[in-house]
Amino acid sequence: MIIVADNIRITDQIIADAISQMNPVPIQKMVMECEKAGAQFIDINSGPLSRVPEKQMVFLIDAIQKVSKLPLIVDTANPRAMEAGVRTCKNAPIINGFSLEPSKLDKILPLAREFQTDIIGYLLYPNGHVPPDGDKRLEIALELFEQFKKTGIDEKRLIIDPVIVPLSWQDGKFQAMEVLYVIKHLPDIFGFPIRTIAGLSNLTSGRGHKAQKLIMEKAYLSMLAAAGLSMIMMNVFNHDTIKTVKACNLLVDEKIFAWEEMY
Amino acid sequence: MIIVADNIRITDQIIADAISQMNPVPIQKMVMECEKAGAQFIDINSGPLSRVPEKQMVFLIDAIQKVSKLPLIVDTANPRAMEAGVRTCKNAPIINGFSLEPSKLDKILPLAREFQTDIIGYLLYPNGHVPPDGDKRLEIALELFEQFKKTGIDEKRLIIDPVIVPLSWQDGKFQAMEVLYVIKHLPDIFGFPIRTIAGLSNLTSGRGHKAQKLIMEKAYLSMLAAAGLSMIMMNVFNHDTIKTVKACNLLVDEKIFAWEEMY
Repeated sequence: MIIVADNIRITDQIIADAISQMNPVPIQKMVMECEKAGAQFIDINSGPLSRVPEKQMVFLIDAIQKVSKLPLIVDTANPRAMEAGVRTCKNAPIINGFSLEPSKLDKILPLAREFQTDIIGYLLYPNGHVPPDGDKRLEIALELFEQFKKTGIDEKRLIIDPVIVPLSWQDGKFQAMEVLYVIKHLPDIFGFPIRTIAGLSNLTSGRGHKAQKLIMEKAYLSMLAAAGLSMIMMNVFNHDTIKTVKACNLLVDEKIFAWEEMY
Repeated sequence: MIIVADNIRITDQIIADAISQMNPVPIQKMVMECEKAGAQFIDINSGPLSRVPEKQMVFLIDAIQKVSKLPLIVDTANPRAMEAGVRTCKNAPIINGFSLEPSKLDKILPLAREFQTDIIGYLLYPNGHVPPDGDKRLEIALELFEQFKKTGIDEKRLIIDPVIVPLSWQDGKFQAMEVLYVIKHLPDIFGFPIRTIAGLSNLTSGRGHKAQKLIMEKAYLSMLAAAGLSMIMMNVFNHDTIKTVKACNLLVDEKIFAWEEMY
């Protein structure tokens, strides 16, 4: 699994303050820490509620590119912020993302064609709701792929997010197992080894003790790895969780050889 | 997954000394600690090299039964020690175990019929060697089942151990993934939800740092859980690994409800 840092997000107070003060330093410090902690991609979530979404996204990306060469994931629901962000990236980023929601199909998906980028597609209903099980997610994956292919973009540019939901939901445990089922079966459905990504912290969002949440996340992370997940979006400052990713990669990835060399 | 303590083994110096001095106290102390740590079964491994195997096994079981009501697994390759051990158990134990090795088929398997106990069957060649992959293990599982059914014992009494091998073996990583495949497919092969058991510490046996071994074990443990493993044999004093079992059970087991109640 490739490690994607979800740390650069407006819901983090340090990031929020840095943006409002247009001060790049705290953002740059955090990005360098993410890279040191093991991040291989940086997701940049500038938040949905901004009055000046383009300005914020461009500020964030400019700040980050001054200190890191890590590939970026531009994460916003605002099409103008997305376009401005993608234009600001020195190297083609990943667009995060679209779904069957009409606004996303109309305004976000075309940007992947225009800028020849990879794009994340979420397995959600057109109204943005989460499907009740794995088979429904697989149906949605096929619809999403149809929409994607209409753009004419190389099919290898699609990355699927099966949508992890909180365990605190009434059907949270069932959904967690169904997401594993989806990750396992997507390559059969698509007929090629389609890449997948998932947001780990969603699993334990809501109330609860941090230590307990981390144990649940690590256990589920290993299950995601065994199911074949390609990219894990996570808080890279959870050092033990990073170690778990490395252990999983060592077990699952044929390209990693000596397990004693992982530290 | 049900937690089976592998701590009561002759290779532990405390246990070895207690046996040689015929002193039950250190054994009883350790068993009570195992129970406190979360053990649901106690595996009793009296070792293969003893001059008085029956006496040692009876001594161990007597000592343990004075302080714990946990169900026992009698773990010896010596048929006389096995028979004496099973006779000493107040409640029917699990016999650990047999394989296609002729000596085991002839001398150990019949004890499960005689004493009406559950028995663990290892997926090994008749010469005791480890099969090279998962499909070969599944073939062996069917042969083992044929041999087992000849005894006339209820088929539900069989528990399969797919045999985890050390990651340090040349094909260790491949074997680790194949074992997951076997656990997933055994119920289809048998036509009923056959129980499975595996020895976690085998994965990292050999040299290496303990902290690294524990991380590998926890990651693999979660994969075993997702594959459907029924019983995990482990060092129950690895507290974090016990927490991982509980987290896995919460994710995988439909009977466990509230994830915040796991501690």
